[in-house]
Parts: sequence; C-alpha cells; structure tokens
Amino acid sequence: MSQLVRPHGGGELMPLLLQGDALAAECARAQTMTRLRVSSRERGDILMLGIGGFTPLDGFMTHADWQGVCDGMRTASGLFWPIPITLSASASAGIRTGQEIALQDPDDGSILATMLVTEVYAIDKAHECASVYRTTDLEHPGVRMVIEQGEVNLAGPVKVLSQGGFPEKYGELYMTPAQTRALFTKLGWSRIAAFQTRNPMHRSHEYLAKVAIEVCDGVLVHSLLGALKPGDIPAEVRTKAIGTLVQHYFMPSTIVQAGYPLDMRYAGPREALLHALFRQNYGCSHLIVGRDHAGVGSYYGPFDAHHIFDHLPPGALETQALKIDWTFWCYRCGGMASARTCPHDEKDRLLVSGTKLRKWLSEGDEVPAEFSRPEVLEVLRAYYAGLDAGSRVEVKLAGHSAR
Amino acid sequence: MSQLVRPHGGGELMPLLLQGDALAAECARAQTMTRLRVSSRERGDILMLGIGGFTPLDGFMTHADWQGVCDGMRTASGLFWPIPITLSASASAGIRTGQEIALQDPDDGSILATMLVTEVYAIDKAHECASVYRTTDLEHPGVRMVIEQGEVNLAGPVKVLSQGGFPEKYGELYMTPAQTRALFTKLGWSRIAAFQTRNPMHRSHEYLAKVAIEVCDGVLVHSLLGALKPGDIPAEVRTKAIGTLVQHYFMPSTIVQAGYPLDMRYAGPREALLHALFRQNYGCSHLIVGRDHAGVGSYYGPFDAHHIFDHLPPGALETQALKIDWTFWCYRCGGMASARTCPHDEKDRLLVSGTKLRKWLSEGDEVPAEFSRPEVLEVLRAYYAGLDAGSRVEVKLAGHSAR
Repeated sequence: MSQLVRPHGGGELMPLLLQGDALAAECARAQTMTRLRVSSRERGDILMLGIGGFTPLDGFMTHADWQGVCDGMRTASGLFWPIPITLSASASAGIRTGQEIALQDPDDGSILATMLVTEVYAIDKAHECASVYRTTDLEHPGVRMVIEQGEVNLAGPVKVLSQGGFPEKYGELYMTPAQTRALFTKLGWSRIAAFQTRNPMHRSHEYLAKVAIEVCDGVLVHSLLGALKPGDIPAEVRTKAIGTLVQHYFMPSTIVQAGYPLDMRYAGPREALLHALFRQNYGCSHLIVGRDHAGVGSYYGPFDAHHIFDHLPPGALETQALKIDWTFWCYRCGGMASARTCPHDEKDRLLVSGTKLRKWLSEGDEVPAEFSRPEVLEVLRAYYAGLDAGSRVEVKLAGHSAR
Repeated sequence: MSQLVRPHGGGELMPLLLQGDALAAECARAQTMTRLRVSSRERGDILMLGIGGFTPLDGFMTHADWQGVCDGMRTASGLFWPIPITLSASASAGIRTGQEIALQDPDDGSILATMLVTEVYAIDKAHECASVYRTTDLEHPGVRMVIEQGEVNLAGPVKVLSQGGFPEKYGELYMTPAQTRALFTKLGWSRIAAFQTRNPMHRSHEYLAKVAIEVCDGVLVHSLLGALKPGDIPAEVRTKAIGTLVQHYFMPSTIVQAGYPLDMRYAGPREALLHALFRQNYGCSHLIVGRDHAGVGSYYGPFDAHHIFDHLPPGALETQALKIDWTFWCYRCGGMASARTCPHDEKDRLLVSGTKLRKWLSEGDEVPAEFSRPEVLEVLRAYYAGLDAGSRVEVKLAGHSAR
C-alpha cells in the first residue's frame, strides 16, 4: 500500500501541546512566570507548534536560525524552512537568557505556552523583509508586522498549554495534523492535494480543487482560520460559504474540509513554501498553487509562487506543488478553463475583481452563476447585508444619511 | 532541467528501419527471399518496430518470450511486456528455421521487412486469448484475430524497409518516437500525458485532455492510425475531427497532435499497459487512462485498466497512468465533471451512447453542444452523409428503396 508523505524532517510528528498531568503541572508553574503578551501572528505560530503543524521545530528560532532562514531557507541545523518563526519582545521588558516566561494570548490574556529563553537577540528587520517579503514597503501587511514587532527576538523551546479556543469554536472543522493523517489513512488515501484558502470559494477555486480531485485520491480544502488583513472576509463566514459549496457541488468521498490556526503573512512565494511544508505535516502530498498564491497588492509576479518550487534543493520538501494557471469561466469554451487550456480572447472570459464582486453583493445585484454558485452567494450576501446594517448604524450615530 | 522518461528497457531508442545504402542493399536482397504476406495487425507491429515504438524488441518473439508474456508479462530475458508481439504463418508455407523471408504488406504486397527465422513454433491459442484477452469468446475481435492467425509462429530479428505509406498519407501528423522526443525537448516539456484515441474527441475526451494539461507540461493527442473493427470511424475522419477541435478549443502551446500505425487489439487492461509502454518510447511520462480503456463490448470492468497499473512490479514502466473516472456534462454542475467530482444524479447528466450519437448524426438531428463541439459534429455529419449516400447507391443497385 502507498504511504502518506512523512512529516517534515523525516521523523515523527512533534506536537508541543502538553496533555493530562504534564499540562496541569505546567499551567501551575506558568502562574509564577514573567508574562509576555504575544502578537496575533505569534499566537498562530504557537498554536501550530502545539498541534505539530510546525514539526520538527521545538520552539522559536535563534539568531543563527533566523539568519539561515532569511539568507538560504535553512535553519542552523540545516533543516529546510522558508520563513523565520520568531517571537519578539520590547527591549524594555528586560527578558533575559535563562528565564522562563509565560506567553499570553493577545486578546484575552490567557496563557498559551511557556518558554525557556535561550537567547535574546536583535535582528536587521529590513533584511528579513527584503529576504522574505522581497520588499521593505510598509504598505505591505507582512512587512508592517515585522517592522512593528518588538526590538528583540527571544529564542527557545516552547511547551504549549492551549489550542487557543479553535476546537471549541470550529468543532470538527479544526483538525490537527495527527487527525488528518489518521483520516487519510482510514480513507486509503496517499495522494492528497491541499487547497489553501483564505477566501470563500467561487467557481475558479472549485475548478482548482476539482482538477486536483481528478488526479489525486482526494483534496483537503484547508482554510486559514487565523487573522487576515482588514477588509477580508472573516473565517466563520468563509468556512460556512465553503461548507455550502462542498455540500452541493462535491462528492463527499473525495473531499475533506478543515482549517488551521495561522495568520496570513502575505509573503507570496516564500509563504507558498511554508504552506507546502506544513501541509506535509498534515499528510498532504501536494499543495495546489494557483495564481498569486499568498500574495497581496502587486508585490509578486502572478506565478512567482510556481517558480520558487523549481529551484528548491532536492529533498527540501516531500510535498510538491500542483501548479495551476489562472482560471476563469470562458463563454466560448462553455466551461471553466485556464490560460493553459483556453485559446480564446479575454473578452470571451468572465473576469470579476474582488471590488466588483463586493459591489454586486452589497448592492444586491445579480452575480453570474458562472462566477459563483448561488448557494455560496447567499451566504456572502447575508454577511454583507449585516455589514451594511452595521455601517448604517455607525453612520447614523455620526449623523449622516444611510447611503 | 528535467528529462524525458527513458525509452523502455532503459537504453536508447532502437528503430529497426534501415536507412540509405543499407536500405537499398536489403531491398535488393529481399527480392530473392521467400515471401510471407502478413496480417494487418502484424503490419502495424512491423511499422512500430521500424520507428522504435517497440524499443527494445529486435523482432518477433520466440516461444519462450510468448509463454513468459502470456503468463507473467515478461519476455525470456526478463523485459516487461504485456502482449505477445508475434508473427504467424500457415504450416503449409513450409518456412524453416534459418531461412530469411520477406514480409509483405497485406494490401499491396509491397515488402515491409525482412526477417531471419530463428524458430518456428506452435502455440496454445486459447491460452494466449485467456491470458491476454481474459476470454476465448470468438465474438471478441482480438480473440478472433489470434484464432484466425496461421498455425505456426515465426520468431527472429527483423530489418524494416518501409513506413507503410503513413508519412505520405498523414504528413506532419505521423511522428516517430525520435521526432516526438525531439519536439518535447525543444518545447522544454518533461511531464507529458499521452491521450490515446481511436475515436473522434467529444467534450468528455476534451475534458480528459484538458485536466492533463492543467497538471502536466502538455498533452500528446495520439491517434491510432491502423485498422479498427468494422463500424468504427476511419482514421482520416477522426484525425480531421480532432484537428478541428484542437484548432478551436486548445492552446497551441500545450498540445501536440500525432498518430501511430498500430491496429487495435481491444485487449482492455493489457492493451492499456502496451499503450503506456510505447508512449514511454514516444517520451510521454503519463498515459491518460479513462473508462474502459481499449475495451470492447463488456469483456472488461470499466476500471480494470486502472487497477492493472496498481499491480505492476516496481520498475516495470517509467510511464505512469493518469487515471480519470467516467466523465460527462452535468447540468447541475453546469460543466464537465466526473464521477469523482460531481455529486448529482444520473438524470442531471448528459449521457450519450455511441448508437444514439450515430443515429442523431445520420438523421441530421441536433446534438447537444454540451456533448460535442459543433465544429467536430460538422466533420462527422459530412462523413455520415457520405456513408448514407453510399448505402443508398448500394441499396438501389440491389433493387430496394433508399430508406
């Protein structure tokens, strides 16, 4: 029988989340430690360390790791890793090497993890941005996150004490790498494509997933459940829209819908590599990489995230890119197509920008069924109607007319 | 840079076609030899040996090869081979071991090849049929070919003297394995899916090819140009219909249309393996295997040709199956789909039998555009109109009314 891809690094999954008595004891110890409130992005990284999504990392990276990852996508030990996984603090917090600290949730202050600080170091933030994000422009939301983080980084092994409320909030949708691996094995799957998504799925996304299903055992529709940039559609609305699509337009025997707790970094090609890396931990042999994967604005070429997979050293990742070109409905093809399969003109293609879609949805206009399924649009319309109601209230309070 | 798959057996292509002075000399020698008129199927095998499509075979198989191929898909030397490649003669022809013979075209008597006979042997024809075709039913066209062949088989190395008129008849469409390999290399392709076809391409076939294009560098639409069973559409009509489809509905940068000179054997799963084997010689990394590949009637389960690839010994073939389920237009999906991607009922799907299509075409009825492209249908209507005109003439001569 075929096997699942091995966890990254070739060993076993390494979830850092404590269980049972060890968890209770560490929670008690954590009460006595200096506390550090982490950022939303750092919380996502802690939760991924906890569930084994970042196997085989045992905590936050050292300066040598950071340098190696920025410059050559390798940690000090030679492990392939495309984006620094670091924890920052303000210099004035006075955290020192050798200290044990408790890492707090940025929203509710609950303790997410403890950490033994093995190194306190400063970094050249501009170098990280230029290496990882290919820009130092503060308009880039990933760059801004790096620039705004604390003055120093803290390295050291982490013991994770919490799943950050995700299992309670998302129920069965929130699966750990061990759970997806067990499910794939039960289903007899070995060739599994992950579909990374931070958007509701319209027909072009459905097409990408279905192409993958045609040539794999099945697809994991894997939604980012962490934070996004302002204006993006929140996770609960996205997962509901995707659930509706899956229910009406997919075969239950070839699809699994799940989510993971990271925030978006918008690092384009480097983030596509990170997306492939942790999908390997979830047991996926392939990551679907479409147009402008993990991009934002026009910082990356539309297929930079395809090209970066062509230049990986052998053995860097077992999980491979399933590269698919720009996709759309073509009226002359009479079907979904891509720039590789459709020979017709742009005028024959249904091209809808995010801005145009949002306008259609908020103003109650008809959206072509060739662009998005009516059941999905219904979920989105309800969301935008709620937003508009909210805006109207705010606007009224400010003394202006509703529209 | 990625490389093409290696020719079968791991060495160089071995075209047995003589060139230049060697060809002229052998043609002269052939005039003095005993002649043997081969069957249409044997002619196809000779032509494939000539162009290197059957690399690394050097001629027709011995009894030990035949036995090994029937029983375990291995020649006496251990080479993986799924279907016997044998030459038959009537016992009364009196051909003996050590004799050199000239192999004649069954239609025009021209000399296709010479052969040094190294063995004359009888076979258990029923055993070949049961092993290769999984049936001994004479209604099976492949079985009938075996049963009707001469009483003895002749083994020995072959020198090929002709391309059987294919280059003249099909022009650029007729490419040798060396030519497709050179073209793929020039295009920078290494991941190439072959689409085997002995039918005109309707939308379900277009869909198979386009799924392959989405995930490969390109597709080779590879038409069988040899003989088919009665009632099938002849090669020149098929290739014209396919050419029209390619011209109107494919990107020229991701597709190559070509043909090869074999006859169909209708051996289902074993023939799917042969199709993959010689596509490896043509430089293709994948063979698209759909529903009932190379089947006829209901001798094979619809996915037997998928399953047989799961049980090959490691290293048997470099070329892999790209398995795709049953495909169709689904009105609820509003697009092409397969049984793996569409969750809807059969009543939502457009299912057209060959018989129904032929009735529509010959009677001038409307064929749904979701089933076949209008440009393709036009080519087929012209063909059926010609057939009908022919039938009318014949019928008139026989003194009956035209309809």
